[in-house]
Amino acid sequence: MKSFCNRIRFISSFLLSATLFGVANCQGGFQPGNGGENGQQSQLCTNVSQSLLEEIKRYQPIVNQIGQLILNGTYKGIAYKNLSEFVDNFGSRLTGSESLEKSIDHVLNTMKFIGLDDAHCEDVTAPKWVRGYESLTMTVPYKKNIQVLGLLPTVQTPEEGITSEIVVVESYRDLQENKNDVLSRVKGKILVFNHPFDDAVNAVTYRHRSAIEGAKVGAIATIVRSYATFSLSTPHTGEMHYEDDTPPIPSAEIAIEDAELLGRLYDRGQKIVLNLILRNQRVGNITTRNTIGDLKGSSIPDEYVLVSGHADSWDVGQGALDDGYGVILSLLVPDVLKTMNLIPKRTVRSIVWTAEEISKVPLGAQQYLEQHGDELRNKYSFFLEADSGIFNARGLIMNGTDEAQCIISEILKLLEPHIIEKTRVVTPFPDLKTDIVPLMRATGVPGAILDTDGEKYFWYHHSNADTVTALNPNDLDVCLALMTSLSYVLADLSIMLPKMVV
Amino acid sequence: MKSFCNRIRFISSFLLSATLFGVANCQGGFQPGNGGENGQQSQLCTNVSQSLLEEIKRYQPIVNQIGQLILNGTYKGIAYKNLSEFVDNFGSRLTGSESLEKSIDHVLNTMKFIGLDDAHCEDVTAPKWVRGYESLTMTVPYKKNIQVLGLLPTVQTPEEGITSEIVVVESYRDLQENKNDVLSRVKGKILVFNHPFDDAVNAVTYRHRSAIEGAKVGAIATIVRSYATFSLSTPHTGEMHYEDDTPPIPSAEIAIEDAELLGRLYDRGQKIVLNLILRNQRVGNITTRNTIGDLKGSSIPDEYVLVSGHADSWDVGQGALDDGYGVILSLLVPDVLKTMNLIPKRTVRSIVWTAEEISKVPLGAQQYLEQHGDELRNKYSFFLEADSGIFNARGLIMNGTDEAQCIISEILKLLEPHIIEKTRVVTPFPDLKTDIVPLMRATGVPGAILDTDGEKYFWYHHSNADTVTALNPNDLDVCLALMTSLSYVLADLSIMLPKMVV
Repeated sequence: MKSFCNRIRFISSFLLSATLFGVANCQGGFQPGNGGENGQQSQLCTNVSQSLLEEIKRYQPIVNQIGQLILNGTYKGIAYKNLSEFVDNFGSRLTGSESLEKSIDHVLNTMKFIGLDDAHCEDVTAPKWVRGYESLTMTVPYKKNIQVLGLLPTVQTPEEGITSEIVVVESYRDLQENKNDVLSRVKGKILVFNHPFDDAVNAVTYRHRSAIEGAKVGAIATIVRSYATFSLSTPHTGEMHYEDDTPPIPSAEIAIEDAELLGRLYDRGQKIVLNLILRNQRVGNITTRNTIGDLKGSSIPDEYVLVSGHADSWDVGQGALDDGYGVILSLLVPDVLKTMNLIPKRTVRSIVWTAEEISKVPLGAQQYLEQHGDELRNKYSFFLEADSGIFNARGLIMNGTDEAQCIISEILKLLEPHIIEKTRVVTPFPDLKTDIVPLMRATGVPGAILDTDGEKYFWYHHSNADTVTALNPNDLDVCLALMTSLSYVLADLSIMLPKMVV
Repeated sequence: MKSFCNRIRFISSFLLSATLFGVANCQGGFQPGNGGENGQQSQLCTNVSQSLLEEIKRYQPIVNQIGQLILNGTYKGIAYKNLSEFVDNFGSRLTGSESLEKSIDHVLNTMKFIGLDDAHCEDVTAPKWVRGYESLTMTVPYKKNIQVLGLLPTVQTPEEGITSEIVVVESYRDLQENKNDVLSRVKGKILVFNHPFDDAVNAVTYRHRSAIEGAKVGAIATIVRSYATFSLSTPHTGEMHYEDDTPPIPSAEIAIEDAELLGRLYDRGQKIVLNLILRNQRVGNITTRNTIGDLKGSSIPDEYVLVSGHADSWDVGQGALDDGYGVILSLLVPDVLKTMNLIPKRTVRSIVWTAEEISKVPLGAQQYLEQHGDELRNKYSFFLEADSGIFNARGLIMNGTDEAQCIISEILKLLEPHIIEKTRVVTPFPDLKTDIVPLMRATGVPGAILDTDGEKYFWYHHSNADTVTALNPNDLDVCLALMTSLSYVLADLSIMLPKMVV
């Protein structure tokens, strides 16, 4: 194992010496569904042949070696070190920013350095948006500056802002049911949604649709309680939507504490006036890039297992959790395999997507699908993405047939207990945006994201707190060991995973 | 118990209807020492007479009733409701602000409403300081806006700020030992202290003394990692010191994440340039007020047990933990006793201090000591203060003789297990600023603050996250039950607590 040392150190130092330059920074989004531990899931495995189950078991020594190298060997802590250097050197990486493109150059260079085959970029068209001056001030009943982050692509307020009395509701239902005669009071006012994080899929609709639902009832702007499970006065940001038949109104998020304060004052009958200034700007379309590199398969190189993450982030924090770690793991999976001379039959393809955050659909993945639809449909066994946090990884959140779930859960068992005490495969796949969702929908190829502690993930997600400080090296090592083991076994197995009906 | 209902509701509604007005907002500070559970401590109790131990035990039914009323009866949740209304209505309460004086008016009115005897204010002279425009921007190696909070009473930077390369150290020791030849590099630069929170007493010296130690080695400003145990990109503020023989240089705190980022970049040899703007202003002295009210003792009214907290806060968050809850509990202790018709032999005196945060010494308490030294020295049995958080209260952090500790620990046992599963008395009292410290030092009268989860307290302390969102009603109820029980028993006991030698 010692012989890997120099190579790893060189990789690390290569990342360190990356061109340093200029900007500062954070999505992801998933929801743990109803998962079962593997013990339960293997009840499904009656539809998998005994010979395939035995074939999977024969990978146990290799998975043990992968775990040993990453958790206790020369790769221990390497993912954290590389991630730290990546996000420290490039900062946040909003689509359209110079920092994103420099980080993509670096990803391409790293793929070449690792020795991936056919490392290259492919152009993606995406909108550019620049955050301008933003402020929120309560002026009545007393003056208080409130931290605020505009949602993207919010329309601007006038330079002096919008100054208005507010109406506070907890949910869209309050509007539908005209609770406390809210509809007669909300017209011409700023509407505040103080909606607690109930579940990830429902709560995010307040980020996405508040401006639409607010405009429908005559509000002139919406302020949304941050899409977060915990706060230390931490506002979050993210993507919002408009619809053609409602006027676009400004929309922004505030910290949980401030939303609760406004809610309490309002519930006590207090008149509250806010001044909201959002001077953000859409500045046309730009070209950004997906980055692709292959660890070429030994005998069936034109069949693929995908390992992926996205390079772009929001313009707050460092985008370490969302999704710098996905970038680093997508580079390290083939690097570990090369270091161990483990070349599977099929190709392990790393794709670092771009422009995942900026739009309703992940633009990098969507445009890749448009250009490579046939190959994705016919030549891929599995789509893997790291874009759902790293805390206490236990397995995968997966989309696939019962048979595919069974095969995956049998492979994950190879990680027990030395990498993960008890693994699990969670279904169904949540209705949230990740790069692999449009791929799975269009092709029927099964796919997965990591199953991690989602509650903690949303402490950090899309906020200034998404930095490497939030992460610990061991959590990252476990994710890398899982992804490396799974990618290798899937790419080397005698069969492709069965597809879903689409 | 039902008969208390109307009275409580009225109190609550009285607090609600308080004059609403204008500003927005957080100190405390303690360190859990080496505590023993009461079982251990009672070994000391050989120096307490059997008859006194039996006398204490006879208060068990009364403590049970107090616990019942507060934890399960009509006072359940009342402390939280009152605290929420207090901090929501007045906002943060920096010394010199209109909001502080309005909140003090409200405290006085509430004391009168509760029916405390001789409710009145006493003037305190304190400096006024106003936070101006503040910003911190990293310009090299790339542009990044960093959240910053000036420490008080930092000198101003020029309007355009100080722009300088930085030097990062972890500790004062790095300077003393000239680690990596730091002394030759720090002159004329901004010095960043990236000192992790080790223990509360040591870590706070980086807030207090960084400008002094920085100026000694030629730095032109100091930036300090926030005095906090956890962060979601949350900068903290607080008090800093200057000394006559070193030039005053600007000083401010940044979030843990940003201090770590600067530390990592610096350790990798990266040149880093920051622009720091702090436009804060000292604007002379003002008069503020301590507020005093008595629940007059039935037979020895000129002997006292003190229950206290401080009304002023920092100008961030809401000052709910530091120290709005201390204000509310100091009002509710005598209110609960009156409601229960429990009038002890001695007087329970509530004092809501002012100007605790603004200076090296707690000015309200210090000036009260100067004016009432003889009474404090000769007529007080115990000084109790709530200014050390509320999370998971287990007992007291105390200053007193072995005999006094024993008596207190025997009284706390009356709370087991229905109010607190297992109580404890922690010693020694930490060398941190609280109002009762100068009183204890000058008089030898024993005193205590609550023993709570200090690690969590420092998530919030002096930051925008110090709001009622951080608190839960049950924790507050436990603190109120502890303080009410202790105050009653101490004020009613046949003896005054023995004094320390000063």
